[in-house]
Amino acid sequence: MHRARISATFDPMKLTVMIYDNEDTVVSRRAAFERVESDLGLLDNMKLPHVYSGLDRDGLYLEGVRRARAITNDMITHGHNHFQWLNERYQIGNTSPFGMNFLMFRRTIELQGTPAQQRYWLPRIDQMKINGAYAQTELAHGTFVRGIETTATFDVNTDTFTIDSPTPTSIKYWPGGLGFSCSHAVVAARLIIQGKDHGVHMFIVQIRSLQNFKPVNGVELGDLGMKMAYNGTCNGYARFNFLRVPRSSLLAGHAQVLRDGTYTSVQTQKDAPPLSKMVYSTMLDTRRNIVRCVAFGLSQGLTIAARYSTVREQGKPMFSNGKNEEAAIIAYKSQHYRLLTHIAQSYAILFAAKDYDLKYAQLIRDQANNNHSQLSFMHALSTGLKAWATTVANTGATEARKMCGGHGFVALSGLPEIEGTVSATATFEGENYVLWQQLMAYLFKQVEAPCRGQEVDIEVKEFIEGVRACLDADMPAYSDPDHSQDKLFDDFYLLSIYEKRAQRLLVAAFKSYTTMRHSLSVATAWNNCMISTLSAGQAYIEYIVLRSFTERASSIAARESGLSLVLSRLSRLFALTNIITPVLSFSAGSFVEHGLFAPGQLDEMRVHINELLEQLLPDVIALTDAWDFTDASLCSALGCKDGNVYERLMSWTRQLPANNGQTVEKAWRAPDGIEEFLRASRL
Amino acid sequence: MHRARISATFDPMKLTVMIYDNEDTVVSRRAAFERVESDLGLLDNMKLPHVYSGLDRDGLYLEGVRRARAITNDMITHGHNHFQWLNERYQIGNTSPFGMNFLMFRRTIELQGTPAQQRYWLPRIDQMKINGAYAQTELAHGTFVRGIETTATFDVNTDTFTIDSPTPTSIKYWPGGLGFSCSHAVVAARLIIQGKDHGVHMFIVQIRSLQNFKPVNGVELGDLGMKMAYNGTCNGYARFNFLRVPRSSLLAGHAQVLRDGTYTSVQTQKDAPPLSKMVYSTMLDTRRNIVRCVAFGLSQGLTIAARYSTVREQGKPMFSNGKNEEAAIIAYKSQHYRLLTHIAQSYAILFAAKDYDLKYAQLIRDQANNNHSQLSFMHALSTGLKAWATTVANTGATEARKMCGGHGFVALSGLPEIEGTVSATATFEGENYVLWQQLMAYLFKQVEAPCRGQEVDIEVKEFIEGVRACLDADMPAYSDPDHSQDKLFDDFYLLSIYEKRAQRLLVAAFKSYTTMRHSLSVATAWNNCMISTLSAGQAYIEYIVLRSFTERASSIAARESGLSLVLSRLSRLFALTNIITPVLSFSAGSFVEHGLFAPGQLDEMRVHINELLEQLLPDVIALTDAWDFTDASLCSALGCKDGNVYERLMSWTRQLPANNGQTVEKAWRAPDGIEEFLRASRL
Repeated sequence: MHRARISATFDPMKLTVMIYDNEDTVVSRRAAFERVESDLGLLDNMKLPHVYSGLDRDGLYLEGVRRARAITNDMITHGHNHFQWLNERYQIGNTSPFGMNFLMFRRTIELQGTPAQQRYWLPRIDQMKINGAYAQTELAHGTFVRGIETTATFDVNTDTFTIDSPTPTSIKYWPGGLGFSCSHAVVAARLIIQGKDHGVHMFIVQIRSLQNFKPVNGVELGDLGMKMAYNGTCNGYARFNFLRVPRSSLLAGHAQVLRDGTYTSVQTQKDAPPLSKMVYSTMLDTRRNIVRCVAFGLSQGLTIAARYSTVREQGKPMFSNGKNEEAAIIAYKSQHYRLLTHIAQSYAILFAAKDYDLKYAQLIRDQANNNHSQLSFMHALSTGLKAWATTVANTGATEARKMCGGHGFVALSGLPEIEGTVSATATFEGENYVLWQQLMAYLFKQVEAPCRGQEVDIEVKEFIEGVRACLDADMPAYSDPDHSQDKLFDDFYLLSIYEKRAQRLLVAAFKSYTTMRHSLSVATAWNNCMISTLSAGQAYIEYIVLRSFTERASSIAARESGLSLVLSRLSRLFALTNIITPVLSFSAGSFVEHGLFAPGQLDEMRVHINELLEQLLPDVIALTDAWDFTDASLCSALGCKDGNVYERLMSWTRQLPANNGQTVEKAWRAPDGIEEFLRASRL
Repeated sequence: MHRARISATFDPMKLTVMIYDNEDTVVSRRAAFERVESDLGLLDNMKLPHVYSGLDRDGLYLEGVRRARAITNDMITHGHNHFQWLNERYQIGNTSPFGMNFLMFRRTIELQGTPAQQRYWLPRIDQMKINGAYAQTELAHGTFVRGIETTATFDVNTDTFTIDSPTPTSIKYWPGGLGFSCSHAVVAARLIIQGKDHGVHMFIVQIRSLQNFKPVNGVELGDLGMKMAYNGTCNGYARFNFLRVPRSSLLAGHAQVLRDGTYTSVQTQKDAPPLSKMVYSTMLDTRRNIVRCVAFGLSQGLTIAARYSTVREQGKPMFSNGKNEEAAIIAYKSQHYRLLTHIAQSYAILFAAKDYDLKYAQLIRDQANNNHSQLSFMHALSTGLKAWATTVANTGATEARKMCGGHGFVALSGLPEIEGTVSATATFEGENYVLWQQLMAYLFKQVEAPCRGQEVDIEVKEFIEGVRACLDADMPAYSDPDHSQDKLFDDFYLLSIYEKRAQRLLVAAFKSYTTMRHSLSVATAWNNCMISTLSAGQAYIEYIVLRSFTERASSIAARESGLSLVLSRLSRLFALTNIITPVLSFSAGSFVEHGLFAPGQLDEMRVHINELLEQLLPDVIALTDAWDFTDASLCSALGCKDGNVYERLMSWTRQLPANNGQTVEKAWRAPDGIEEFLRASRL
């Protein structure tokens, strides 16, 4: 492991600083992790982590509360937010039972509360005098907000709202922390006044007594039980049974109900941005954080796999002769290939998230000046990035586990928990297939804009012009490839090919849609060309992601030539392996199908990939070390920094409480035990 | 749900009979499930299954023992083996703590024991007077059997072997049932006599006392803790510390140690097949069962997803107008596409397994006559089928879970358990990447055979002749596609394209290898063209699988025209979606790259896929019903036959023990509880 570490061609600390933006953050984060891990008793990496001791539902949740206390306490005491989006295990914030308090709960009040409501609630949230949940999703209603059934009916006599779950399907189901941990919740419900439905509004409601900790009258609360991951928190359900809450419960920043039941939907400040646009940008904020977080989740899996692959020996490579020595599994090209391909993807996701963050900061500045012109584009990009990044991270986290063979399957490896946590991101905050469609609806609209006499959004203007040129000239979306190979491995040439591919796939999808429109309704035509549009969406995002990666690698200062070289190799590896062995398969083979490469060029790429793999091999450990994960955050017997895999795995195994003999007693001696069974058998 | 069920164009019972081979088996299996589920109290599908009640390590294992007792008892009492390879949840046999007793433990004694040893042990196994484990894998040694470190040293003075784990890495780690449940084990150890190492032999050893259930002196036993799945059994570890066992412990059917320490390796019967060839065919037996089992695992996930997709409504399809009604999610083309693509794959795997079974039966007959000519081919095919089928089933099981959105993530959906169980098959019994290489080494050898003056194996003769023709004429592995589209959707034409593709990829891989051999060693050249060889291996297996599917669909009697039509559509859907959106990505785009289709033809395929999806839509429920899963075996709140999703999910959620109030008390009131934390915060 030491050899593999010192073989690096660059200083991983430079990359760490790039990942966390600056040196101060790196230092401050490290200090926070040290304090929290010391507080939680996690610094001895030979000790079995409590979370792996075979806990039941209660035990896992209580361990989650213990950890949530420690990180929240550290954030409040030391005035930072390092654990807000990524907790002490680098899991996304909603895995913690206090996580939503600082995220969606707070954000909704900040955005939709009146100044008075904000003055009252925000300090209580920031200092954690209460713990809040965000209760929107219902048993039968997910991303489709208009489907929400919970009602809040105004009663002018008592000046209260009655919150009710009128049907079994309207029970709130899924909100993080709702089951056991939260005292309050923001509840999404249809506002009904004198029989009139004013649509979904947000209400802040106390759901659990702070005296006896029982649900308040009129609320039934519970936990959803075990999940693939997220067991440290209590995703829960809430059924409202005519719960009466005061009129002040309505978050009334933008819509108010007067004492007499009059409904007014107003802008509180003149020239303030409209609510819908601000809610939209909140969604973007959540999504960009998800994209960033899955890069860390994937990298955690890959850090473990990289270290294990360096230490683990298995068999002899095929046809190798000589001594009977086994080879480290990274010596097998398949392992070597998978590991570096996914490492390249983890950086691709990270850099794409960082570029999105810069654009997002600009959007917020623009919106403050009531300029929302970038909002549609930013929303579309967020949907595509989220769908793409979570799918890639998901696949990669699973591969990281499989790269550790059987040992990756036990909890002690840390990999099942990482895989499960990353996996959740593919289906929450917008199911990925729904999101892809939103990206494509946007791109189609941009393609159609000139025909409607509308302007194309500035951010996609050049891209769409290429698409329009092709459509207007009625050119086929295919053409003969350029056979000259001299530029094939030039990073910006590859990027231009990715752009062309995205344009051609968009042309193909749009043509297919237009053809279907001749005989079908919009909805049916759209539905029927789904696979073509998914391909085009994927290709567009891959172009954007590669652009971020290529530009970042090329923009590194000349004095950091080591870092620049390794990132440039990594971005080329990303571009080439995504052509040869793509993770998403909507448009498998599209590079050849659309005449962007000739078959012989693909063989050239395969050779060049091998060269890149050789060049990057000495950097595998440095590229994963750079993420700066502590041993306790990886929580893996296979992945500690020292590479001491077998001793640690056996030590943790021996410390498992089930191995104290009592489990065997229960299994064998019970009236229905194994003993009786063996004895009872005939012979 | 009823509507979706009666819309079928064929009688699902006909397909059920095909899946289980004959009507008697269907009837007898149904009776066995009924008895066992009644015995276990699982017939009330509104009752929360005990396994989801939030159990700790002990609880999950004890539930596994309870279930293992029930199925084993039923098999012994009623004289069948329905639960041997697939248990009461349709999980592979080694998920049960008694499973290995009847599988690897028994099989090894049968194969390697003397007649006397067999007479003694086999009845004890069949009647379960003992429970045996198969202890081969070590902490640092998996598929590479020669790496095994455990020793069995003969002591001529005491006439005993001393079994020892000489290093930490030699501890047996992973064997099913070893942790808590087994009294005996077959142990793989190096036989040492007077300092001489005779290689790995098998010993039958008592490891746990049947009086006090403690490990016998000289053995340390324990469990590996929680895993992604398989928590009903106790995959375990065993460390041997100079355990003395009698000389009769050596399974001495083929190699004996005499009283004076003389080692003789003999064939017990004249003309009996050599041991190595019989051990080989045992491996094939295990692998073909894995292939079969993952078809069932995948289908379980898809049955749940199909039922949920029929019942779940979510949003309005994009651009749809009219009423505000939500649409069932199967109406979304992406869901519809994924669901049927994976359903087609589940049948593809099943039919490939069935064809392999027929060949296997012939092999066993041949081997009994000392004819082993088919063994190499059958071994190679088993490696490829196992690697391919487990990867496809794995991906499909994950997709099935994701198709159920967030609800798929909770244990109550049944999907995490199914996904985890299927996932294990990708890394056990031969890691898939190791297996692919074995297939390719075989195919390369067959390609080279004529140059060496050897015969090509009969089963691949025609296929290899095509490859040789291309190589001998030094033809490129690319060519221009046939643009005529009239035959494009003819099943046997598609099959011929799959064959050509496999041949061309093999040609390309072989050429790439030969070129590299000019400057590199065999091992390095092999390693460097790994991705090309993986592509060729994948393409070969996909050709074999499609052949099974196509032939089966076309061979159905004319009077079963409904069944024949639906299977023919399904096999074409399998062939086409595997071109457009392939699951394995080694050779994504290879159909176009190798000139087998023109780009325009791919667009034709996309249109035809839509037609097939429409035609197959009425059959989705029937195609999953046909697997004949009981509600209890699916163990899913989302997937019961009646489609009553929401009521059941809420009912099960409310029955969770953690929702009885005590968990909240623990979390809030404890000295380190939430209450104290909220109180202590500043404000």
